[in-house]
Amino acid sequence: MPSKVRAIVFHRHGAPAEVARCEEIETAEPAPDEVRVRLLAAPINPADLNVIEGKYPIRPALPGVPGVEGVGVIEAVGAGVTARHAGERVLLPQGYGTWRESGVVKADSVWAVPDGIATEQAAMLRINPATAWRMLRDFVELKPGDWILQNAANSAVGRAVVQIARVSGWRTVNVIRRAELIAGLKADGADVVLLDGDDLPAQIAAATGGAAISLALNAVGGDSALRLVQALAPGGTLVTYGAMSRQPLRIPNGLLIFQDLRWRGFWISQWYRTAAPEAVAAMLAELFTLAQSGALHAPVERLYPLTEAAAALAHAAQGRRAGKILFCGEAAGDSRA
Amino acid sequence: MPSKVRAIVFHRHGAPAEVARCEEIETAEPAPDEVRVRLLAAPINPADLNVIEGKYPIRPALPGVPGVEGVGVIEAVGAGVTARHAGERVLLPQGYGTWRESGVVKADSVWAVPDGIATEQAAMLRINPATAWRMLRDFVELKPGDWILQNAANSAVGRAVVQIARVSGWRTVNVIRRAELIAGLKADGADVVLLDGDDLPAQIAAATGGAAISLALNAVGGDSALRLVQALAPGGTLVTYGAMSRQPLRIPNGLLIFQDLRWRGFWISQWYRTAAPEAVAAMLAELFTLAQSGALHAPVERLYPLTEAAAALAHAAQGRRAGKILFCGEAAGDSRA
Repeated sequence: MPSKVRAIVFHRHGAPAEVARCEEIETAEPAPDEVRVRLLAAPINPADLNVIEGKYPIRPALPGVPGVEGVGVIEAVGAGVTARHAGERVLLPQGYGTWRESGVVKADSVWAVPDGIATEQAAMLRINPATAWRMLRDFVELKPGDWILQNAANSAVGRAVVQIARVSGWRTVNVIRRAELIAGLKADGADVVLLDGDDLPAQIAAATGGAAISLALNAVGGDSALRLVQALAPGGTLVTYGAMSRQPLRIPNGLLIFQDLRWRGFWISQWYRTAAPEAVAAMLAELFTLAQSGALHAPVERLYPLTEAAAALAHAAQGRRAGKILFCGEAAGDSRA
Repeated sequence: MPSKVRAIVFHRHGAPAEVARCEEIETAEPAPDEVRVRLLAAPINPADLNVIEGKYPIRPALPGVPGVEGVGVIEAVGAGVTARHAGERVLLPQGYGTWRESGVVKADSVWAVPDGIATEQAAMLRINPATAWRMLRDFVELKPGDWILQNAANSAVGRAVVQIARVSGWRTVNVIRRAELIAGLKADGADVVLLDGDDLPAQIAAATGGAAISLALNAVGGDSALRLVQALAPGGTLVTYGAMSRQPLRIPNGLLIFQDLRWRGFWISQWYRTAAPEAVAAMLAELFTLAQSGALHAPVERLYPLTEAAAALAHAAQGRRAGKILFCGEAAGDSRA
């Protein structure tokens, strides 16, 4: 067993492709309650880039290993571990730093990945589809046929919202900024896809027959968020989980006081910190089932080995990709060559 | 019984002191399920001025009689009315237009005022103290000793918040803009009174020993509201019930997403529209009890008869008053002369 493994490490905050690079770091044997997991696949999420840039509320001690999610295979189990065994595919936990060839984690912090799910798909479940899942369940009680509004509909969360809504019997109004995305969203099950603009509230009313909409999901902020809110029914809730425009929300007092509209936020990392283990397990079981059936599926643009950190991070920073960039373990990385 | 009574009427929207004047209007005998009520006292609330100006979401048909609350005495009961009797003091209902000498209302829409409460005090209970009562109960579960933040602390709602919090065992941080108001608020039971300004969050932390504060009440908007929010603990709620600055709220995305802060609004008129009659009765019973004990008390600056509409409305529009302006019934008005 190697005492050194490859990992992507950043020693200071800055532009990810510049400050994060592949290095060799020490690894350890698993303690009695730990397992050692070899990386199979780990995506590059926007949050990872923000962590490296130092623009995220979670700031790991430096030097740090990024990576908020991923899938690995257990290669060694601690002496006291009975529930896990070598060879199992598992989801890696929060706070671990998944962009490493191998590492040790608490045995009870990983979740076994069932058969019938591609490793790359499993590696992308714990953050974005989970965010979509919780936002569709924890804020407003949706009935079959209800409409949901969202902007940034082509984001990883947005696509998951469309896919989860479709199998849950809810309808989605999806707001985007590029017409070329419409076909892909419709293929995923989007009921309505609209281009953002000043007439958005009128477009939404026309497309839904003036339906009362009680939930809107916002990852843009600024004027885009305000247009979503203007299309909500009295008592409706805007849930914000991202701020791509970097603009603050503006709340017209009338909408707040007289329409009883509600502004909330959601952050999946905080949810994992406080959720009961049973709640996490129940949600992951549902997401695994959806991934097994193919109902939940995220496109992959390219896999990179850890040794190609700069190229992978530069690729991930490009706006117009057709899918996610992931790091893969050695075997998969080598097979690409 | 007179077939004509005095009332304050506006035929068009505009400056209240200009467009609202005392006229004679038709009155009617009560139908079998109605009572006729003679006015004793009705305050001039900011909402009344907004209604006359045409700047309120409720727009009565023109010509209109303003007045969202007040107290009268029953002077005639319909043939089918058994629960009410002549001579009873009652709170007048929403949607009636209280600034009239006498008028008919549904018998089941009025609430008897118990003895031991001054008529003027009862006339001011149904809107502002009710707003305070609901905001302190319907958004956050407060425990004894918990702190509440509010701006516009010297408003009618703000004073009621202080008084209700005191008897409920909650502590208040009260934000105002004029130092001369501090003593009066402290006399009402305000625990901390602070002058608004850029250092407000630091002042609040110092005054409360860094207590985790989960509820803030906002009637100002703009930067003042933002400063309240910055002093809230994660998961805290800002409830907005007014917008004196006429500035929209701004929500920094970080506070929304990572701190789980919540932006809500409250409008007592909407609450009355949807509340169960038992819930209204239960709340009014509590407010009556507090008024009887003197725990709930609003200062009165002056009473005017309906015949002095312009003077009363001009007086009410002045910013720096020591108390409310009310219209009073003929007897009380005459006694002033």
